[in-house]
Amino acid sequence: MSRLLHLNAFLMSVGHHEAAWRLPETDPYADLDVEHFKNLARIAERGKLDSVFLADGPVLWDQVGRRPSGALEPTVLLTALAGATTRIGLIATASTTYNEPYNLARRFASLDIVSGGRAGWNIVTTAGLDAARNFNLDHLPAHKERYERAAEFVDVSLKLWDSWGDDAVLADKENGVWGDDSKIYPPAHEGRFYKVAGALNVPRSAQGHPVLVQAGSSENGRDFAARYAEAVFTAHQTLADAQEFYADLKRRTAAYGRDPEHLKILPGIVPVIGSSPAEARAKAAELDALIKPEYALPQLAGLLGVSVDDLLLDRPLPADLPAEDVLEGARSRRTLVVNLGRRENLTVREIIARLGGGRGHLTFAGTAGQVADAIQEWFEAGAADGFNIMPPVLPSSLTDFVDQVVPILQGRGLFRTEYAGRTLREHYGLPRPANRNAVLV
Amino acid sequence: MSRLLHLNAFLMSVGHHEAAWRLPETDPYADLDVEHFKNLARIAERGKLDSVFLADGPVLWDQVGRRPSGALEPTVLLTALAGATTRIGLIATASTTYNEPYNLARRFASLDIVSGGRAGWNIVTTAGLDAARNFNLDHLPAHKERYERAAEFVDVSLKLWDSWGDDAVLADKENGVWGDDSKIYPPAHEGRFYKVAGALNVPRSAQGHPVLVQAGSSENGRDFAARYAEAVFTAHQTLADAQEFYADLKRRTAAYGRDPEHLKILPGIVPVIGSSPAEARAKAAELDALIKPEYALPQLAGLLGVSVDDLLLDRPLPADLPAEDVLEGARSRRTLVVNLGRRENLTVREIIARLGGGRGHLTFAGTAGQVADAIQEWFEAGAADGFNIMPPVLPSSLTDFVDQVVPILQGRGLFRTEYAGRTLREHYGLPRPANRNAVLV
Repeated sequence: MSRLLHLNAFLMSVGHHEAAWRLPETDPYADLDVEHFKNLARIAERGKLDSVFLADGPVLWDQVGRRPSGALEPTVLLTALAGATTRIGLIATASTTYNEPYNLARRFASLDIVSGGRAGWNIVTTAGLDAARNFNLDHLPAHKERYERAAEFVDVSLKLWDSWGDDAVLADKENGVWGDDSKIYPPAHEGRFYKVAGALNVPRSAQGHPVLVQAGSSENGRDFAARYAEAVFTAHQTLADAQEFYADLKRRTAAYGRDPEHLKILPGIVPVIGSSPAEARAKAAELDALIKPEYALPQLAGLLGVSVDDLLLDRPLPADLPAEDVLEGARSRRTLVVNLGRRENLTVREIIARLGGGRGHLTFAGTAGQVADAIQEWFEAGAADGFNIMPPVLPSSLTDFVDQVVPILQGRGLFRTEYAGRTLREHYGLPRPANRNAVLV
Repeated sequence: MSRLLHLNAFLMSVGHHEAAWRLPETDPYADLDVEHFKNLARIAERGKLDSVFLADGPVLWDQVGRRPSGALEPTVLLTALAGATTRIGLIATASTTYNEPYNLARRFASLDIVSGGRAGWNIVTTAGLDAARNFNLDHLPAHKERYERAAEFVDVSLKLWDSWGDDAVLADKENGVWGDDSKIYPPAHEGRFYKVAGALNVPRSAQGHPVLVQAGSSENGRDFAARYAEAVFTAHQTLADAQEFYADLKRRTAAYGRDPEHLKILPGIVPVIGSSPAEARAKAAELDALIKPEYALPQLAGLLGVSVDDLLLDRPLPADLPAEDVLEGARSRRTLVVNLGRRENLTVREIIARLGGGRGHLTFAGTAGQVADAIQEWFEAGAADGFNIMPPVLPSSLTDFVDQVVPILQGRGLFRTEYAGRTLREHYGLPRPANRNAVLV
């Protein structure tokens, strides 16, 4: 079979565009409406997409004046979506810096079982002082340390997910032996950050364990992805940048002794779809005109490590900005924003409009055919294994994508017309991992 | 309206009796089957019960040989049940010792919103060294310190649940102002155990915040319940013990300046229902005969703080046992077991059979009418505001209770025939709490 695209629906509130809530069509309370998200998941499943994906941080992200700010906890929300769908994958973001491995591994394992093997975990280390201050800390842990902790967290999680042999349950009523205690493998983990002695109270799932997803593109993030990730969400504004990233990450993955095919690279794209190119551009412009830049200014200043007074709305970025490697925040996002501003000589106001549409991801306004062309181009040019679709307005932009772009991609033989498997791992073409303990025995 | 009973369905795996899984009727894999739990929740809702309730601990509780050992994480499982029901309350157990307030308060708030205001949190401090060793610890934190931490944890959670004013969302599209930032109240909490600076990213729910439930009956536990709890799950073997507890806890609640009516006391009962008293007793005996005492012995020894060699199956408990106040584990459970053994002069084997049926809760074998009589007696004798129904075999014992006992209680005017409200707080007759921040302003 020829290589097929992988497509996720990245669901965020009432859309990725920060002004989406102001459109007449939008329900401004839908950020907290589980029926809104069930509807979105069903639309995505109708389009045979690989998964729905939720970003997350344990913090009130913004001023609530700016946009809908409610964020239902993702493992809870995806469990609700599991009950409203039957095939589509369910990927939730969760932090390794602000969780305990036993609790988080168990919650994802539970979601994985409840959904019949459709769970994925987007592993993040959580940038931002505001989050740190919700968890007993006065400062953000250093970037490098956050990634070291993340690596150990994932190691422990894998041990926990393998703590039941696939054949541990006997259900022998006659002899009164439900499980085989010799097939239980307590992690007995003692590391730099974590000590976890006992086995999980949840066994392996239909797909073995949740798919590991990662989204950081810094040096630390790329190394982490190459070691652990089975899918990577990334942000690029140009084909050349995406190709560099793709080649680099596949190379690093192979260097860890892994099959590069077992890591899927999925850039984000914000598709604004119109019946003509002009209509699409007008839609995008209508949205951008609804942005209030005063909300975004402090956030941009924080990302760049400067004060708000250093940024003037109708001037380009200051020439003198702190270097990436002195920042402890979201490094790759900062570099992307600076490069975007410099390359296109944008004013601060224009940068804010671009970020308001997709937070650094590629915004593409055009017809359904043009969106399909762009996707195909990157897919065939060694820049992507598929895309993380970021609808600017929800539900309408997701409906547009599923009803207009997906059939074109299917017609070109680039995307599935029916699910071949039942688990997220099967959708991504990833093998079910063997239990490491059973292999050792 | 006259005083009405409150009845919860305490759901555990394939039933509370440890040998339930060995019956021919039982699906021994149902501990991990979300459809099994959806079916149970629907049966309980058909019976107009106040809630379904899940116990929990972050640990593999037992040898897997003994009985079905899978335990889906309760907030995940209850979210799945929320989607399968419309009215019944959903109460999950979670530990204050092994969670972070921001994460847990948010997860319960999310469940509360997804379910339309039906969530409750059973607050536990988690006894047992095995759990401690899954969370970086080599020893169990002291009983008193666990409760001090729990109190601060709940204080922080209440601040987080009140961090959005009820009128914080404006959804003003015209002016581009989604929320009123002056109605956001960050906790800025700095206590002995926790520092939590920022507001939650989830607003208040239909019932304000999840109902607070508590289950410890030690001195520390009673004091905690009187301060915070809106419902208490408790275990008593005799009417006199239950009356003492009931009177004491209502008195303590009043002493904290609270309305004692706003704390519901619900003892556990394991109803084994037969068409005749003899049939019920035979059912109970059939179950008890399937228990394998060798599994329970180490657990009983651990509870009592003695070694396995100190317990002989066909002898009474040793005369010389460690006192309650030197143990750091589940104190009230230990006292109950010792009193039960001494009062009825039971052998260790007989104690194990009693605990195998209901882990210290009252097992009652009889006809539906006799079960209804027992419930009515305790309810009217100042021993209970209702009961936590612990079906020994699931689903059949729950079906028996709902189809046979509930109609009798309804016929006597002791239990609702239809839900009057939509939230758990309404089912329990508890007022929606005002936002403390809004009150202060």
